[in-house]
Amino acid sequence: MQKITLEELVSFLKEQGFVFPGSEIYGGLANAWDYGPLGVELKNNIKQAWWKKFVKQNKLNVGLDAAILMNKEVWVASGHIGSFSDPLVDCKKCHSRFRADKLIEDFTHGEITGDGMSNEELTQYLKDNNVVCPVCGALDYTDIRKFNLMFKTFQGVVEDAKNEVYLRPETAQGIFVNFKNIQRTTRRKLPFGVGQIGKSFRNEITPGNFIFRTREFEQMELEFFCVPGTEMDWFKHWRKYCWDFLVSIGVDESKLRYRDHEAKELSFYSNATTDIEFEFPWGFGELWGIASRTSYDLTQHQEHSGKDLTYLDPETNTRYIPYVVEPSVGVERMLLTVLFSAYDVEKNTSEDGKVSERTVLRLSPALAPYKAAVLPLIKKSHGEKAEEIFDEFNRHFSTVYDETANIGKRYRRQDAIGTPYCICVDDNTIANGTVTVRDRDTMEQQTLSVEDAIKFIESKLEF
Amino acid sequence: MQKITLEELVSFLKEQGFVFPGSEIYGGLANAWDYGPLGVELKNNIKQAWWKKFVKQNKLNVGLDAAILMNKEVWVASGHIGSFSDPLVDCKKCHSRFRADKLIEDFTHGEITGDGMSNEELTQYLKDNNVVCPVCGALDYTDIRKFNLMFKTFQGVVEDAKNEVYLRPETAQGIFVNFKNIQRTTRRKLPFGVGQIGKSFRNEITPGNFIFRTREFEQMELEFFCVPGTEMDWFKHWRKYCWDFLVSIGVDESKLRYRDHEAKELSFYSNATTDIEFEFPWGFGELWGIASRTSYDLTQHQEHSGKDLTYLDPETNTRYIPYVVEPSVGVERMLLTVLFSAYDVEKNTSEDGKVSERTVLRLSPALAPYKAAVLPLIKKSHGEKAEEIFDEFNRHFSTVYDETANIGKRYRRQDAIGTPYCICVDDNTIANGTVTVRDRDTMEQQTLSVEDAIKFIESKLEF
Repeated sequence: MQKITLEELVSFLKEQGFVFPGSEIYGGLANAWDYGPLGVELKNNIKQAWWKKFVKQNKLNVGLDAAILMNKEVWVASGHIGSFSDPLVDCKKCHSRFRADKLIEDFTHGEITGDGMSNEELTQYLKDNNVVCPVCGALDYTDIRKFNLMFKTFQGVVEDAKNEVYLRPETAQGIFVNFKNIQRTTRRKLPFGVGQIGKSFRNEITPGNFIFRTREFEQMELEFFCVPGTEMDWFKHWRKYCWDFLVSIGVDESKLRYRDHEAKELSFYSNATTDIEFEFPWGFGELWGIASRTSYDLTQHQEHSGKDLTYLDPETNTRYIPYVVEPSVGVERMLLTVLFSAYDVEKNTSEDGKVSERTVLRLSPALAPYKAAVLPLIKKSHGEKAEEIFDEFNRHFSTVYDETANIGKRYRRQDAIGTPYCICVDDNTIANGTVTVRDRDTMEQQTLSVEDAIKFIESKLEF
Repeated sequence: MQKITLEELVSFLKEQGFVFPGSEIYGGLANAWDYGPLGVELKNNIKQAWWKKFVKQNKLNVGLDAAILMNKEVWVASGHIGSFSDPLVDCKKCHSRFRADKLIEDFTHGEITGDGMSNEELTQYLKDNNVVCPVCGALDYTDIRKFNLMFKTFQGVVEDAKNEVYLRPETAQGIFVNFKNIQRTTRRKLPFGVGQIGKSFRNEITPGNFIFRTREFEQMELEFFCVPGTEMDWFKHWRKYCWDFLVSIGVDESKLRYRDHEAKELSFYSNATTDIEFEFPWGFGELWGIASRTSYDLTQHQEHSGKDLTYLDPETNTRYIPYVVEPSVGVERMLLTVLFSAYDVEKNTSEDGKVSERTVLRLSPALAPYKAAVLPLIKKSHGEKAEEIFDEFNRHFSTVYDETANIGKRYRRQDAIGTPYCICVDDNTIANGTVTVRDRDTMEQQTLSVEDAIKFIESKLEF
């Protein structure tokens, strides 16, 4: 499969109407991106695929949609106000600003991440290893300051501490604070999970790599509540379930790997964490984090809120705080992974030796923005019939209509945006109601009645 | 149809798992709400219904998903930084704070809205009409101060003016700044529309009436671009289209009305605006605003950004700025309207004169959180078969499984959460594969094969 650089992908996606730079006419806004007509459909399809497999069709799970703005105490309890911060240093000579842990990571080419090092350890490492300023070469940093990554704003008229609120840095806490309400109203017994899709915000110092790391992003999180002692089985279950999900939506499995966190890397409350990583053009990056979080989150909220968050086990008639396994993934990263997996430039040599290129976005039909394109062979002769057929198709699934340019050019357009099937309407359609169904990947054509063509495509959308 | 008070609805929705108070275990957060397992499904179905009829199936329109955080200049151009504010007064005696326009609105029982009055006019009205403080009865207000309704935060490490960003107060501007990118990549000719669903934030002084007015809310906006001179036709088109949409999703038409804005009430750039209002228990409230906005928005952005936002008309070969018609509605208000329309308590008198009550949420099948409930008549005898059938149903549409309590009680549960069809699995199912399909509204039952039952329900979901 043809490699594509990040820059080429960004340019391709803008050209086709998938992703535009945010606020572009005003010079943009530090790595913010807007999703165009095709991008929003692809993104919605990814979210709906996740929702289907993690919530709707999963008997163990239900959904939630909590507010972005939450009571400040939530973030005290979760630890985000105390410790959700980056260690910043300035170079005293050139005044450039860096994350100390990232300086070390770059210096060691990823061998040492700096994650989990204390301020003292970071400072010592920079000094001992002569990690000079990447901009000016000096070794003269300020002390490390902790910079909290939550966006702060004020609710109400007065900008004082009482009215401070934060944009949530993760959707997970919305699930934890609603644990009791959900368990009570659904009458669920353990184990059960709660899934949520929603925006989160982190004031990253170094956003970048296109939509890989942005300050505003969308998460798909499942908090799976289970009986203490069973969490390692469920951890393994979700670890595999997430991988299988990625493969089922067309992610290139040869670019995936598990990275199990070593003991010293684990959060103090976690007894197992794995990242599913994808090989991006700049190297492997975290796609999906699966963490066994024990009873930490609910315990924190029980202590800070003073509300009983225990579960009465009907089997043993004892009360305890459930354990939690959390698979957490970002919509934008999954989108990027899907795009890198799907993008392909196919080289074809014709009989007379000419080489031509064809750009094909090999998206899974379930994810493709349009499932079919209805194309009249000749606008004048077949346009009216084609519009009729378009309406019929569009009642069943997302369909696009295109009557401009010659048929070959229109096929290429649909290939490039990932439309799996092109429906050509020609004289035969008018004579006997059949259409030609062209396959995006093989370019093979078959002749079917309109009804059979719809059934055929519907069968390909099952997922 | 049985009337329900707002308080009763709020309590009902919490009890059934539709809507919980946000951050409830910490005492909540000023009128913030979370959507529980049933609420999120209903909300998603409403959003998907809008997206289907306004974007996917509408040949004229495409979609967009722009970021919440935008370049500050967007809000300078749109006028939000200059004038998106509420007129606040404090009572000097008891220090209560009010919106001056709302004081007048409440004082006149809605006869005078105070909208569009200048600070001077508001002050004069309060004085001339003896509009005393509703809390302490004094007539001694501070001067009016303008309070901007946008939430402000800082992006990056330093909290200075350069790093100020706002949470968008409307989704519309994301569409306007992307007008060129969308038109170019979709090769659209006028007229065409761009639809978007997303969160917006307004620092309201007086949020309230449950989810009717919240600081964080979700909008569904269409910006429809058309040739100048054709806008009144399109205005009428969308005005009717929105009304018909509401009726099609089950909103009680007898509680709907148009309120056309009078000339003096119109924004200076608008040549026509209508609100579709719904009669809530507290009176008529705005549900959907349809506004003809002329070329105002694109002109503002062209002037402030210095970028050409004109459209080259291929028919006349002239360049001009398109006119815009905007239908804008909030997801939460539509949800509330749907719920007030659907909630019903039915009184039934049995042959022996006993009166019983049945709570039925008469949701349109397309919106119902679950389309069907699969219920084994007796858990032990029919549970296994029922689970099989549940899996089969759930592959086709959202289905719930319930095997607790007696069958009558389970029917009532499903009635109350709006499930249109209950599938009872009994001895006949095991003997010959038929199930009993019970209709939520009529309580009538019919016997069908599993396959026919699925087809029957699918036909009821068409929309």
